[in-house]
Amino acid sequence: MENISPENVSGFVVGEGCFYVECGGDKKYKLGYRIRPAFCIEVRHDDREVLEAVRDHLGCGNIYDLDFGRYKGYEQKKWKPHVKYRTSNIDDISKKVVPFFKQHRLFGKKRRSFDLFCKIVELVERKAHLSEEGLQQILPLVNELRTLNKKGI
Amino acid sequence: MENISPENVSGFVVGEGCFYVECGGDKKYKLGYRIRPAFCIEVRHDDREVLEAVRDHLGCGNIYDLDFGRYKGYEQKKWKPHVKYRTSNIDDISKKVVPFFKQHRLFGKKRRSFDLFCKIVELVERKAHLSEEGLQQILPLVNELRTLNKKGI
Repeated sequence: MENISPENVSGFVVGEGCFYVECGGDKKYKLGYRIRPAFCIEVRHDDREVLEAVRDHLGCGNIYDLDFGRYKGYEQKKWKPHVKYRTSNIDDISKKVVPFFKQHRLFGKKRRSFDLFCKIVELVERKAHLSEEGLQQILPLVNELRTLNKKGI
Repeated sequence: MENISPENVSGFVVGEGCFYVECGGDKKYKLGYRIRPAFCIEVRHDDREVLEAVRDHLGCGNIYDLDFGRYKGYEQKKWKPHVKYRTSNIDDISKKVVPFFKQHRLFGKKRRSFDLFCKIVELVERKAHLSEEGLQQILPLVNELRTLNKKGI
């Protein structure tokens, strides 16, 4: 596709990207609780090439066709199929995603979400989520991020 | 607000902007038909500063609080108030908006919408919409743009 600059990517992510934390019960973890920072962008399938360009810039992540579960039957409802870019590997998040958006600054409310996300990533990188004390430190930040990300109309 | 570069603006507009044509019966026009190219971006009210930065870059347009009509009662529905940037003055569109996005290129599907929008703007600038023949040339392009802009899920 045509050239997309790093600043195009950050502008686009202000509109379409989501920095969030997957969080919930998981017996594989010592405390029975999973904390997984993730970044995603979901667009209509005919804009897949934009997600490919974002993936090339970030140097990580995968692109998925959303044609399962709640997306089943969308054609009958005149919905268009969607496609999602997602990355949640903590090394990729902390060494690729975070530095990219620190260099190519986000703005507006997304910037506040990102700043909060960075704090959580730093704690997870230091394994804080594996101790009860650290977990209690992370959970309020996760809730704050969730509130900030909430969509309105 | 923090610095937003022109390429941030074009990246953001790929996600959030809309190039469209207001079109319908209007007795003020000779042919009883209004064709008005317009550009808008609608976001949550707490991202108003982003729209202000876009307006500064484009050097035209206005920002409106959407607190009327269908937006009445959104608080009860837990919707958040929205704010809209909009410009439809044909001089501003053709001398400011179009040149800006020709210089700071859009990408993906929005680029195709913009290319089509530019064709319509050129015709309207040449007053094609004021003759029956010109109108018949513009209307299929307007329909094509509408289809391209249609939202899915």
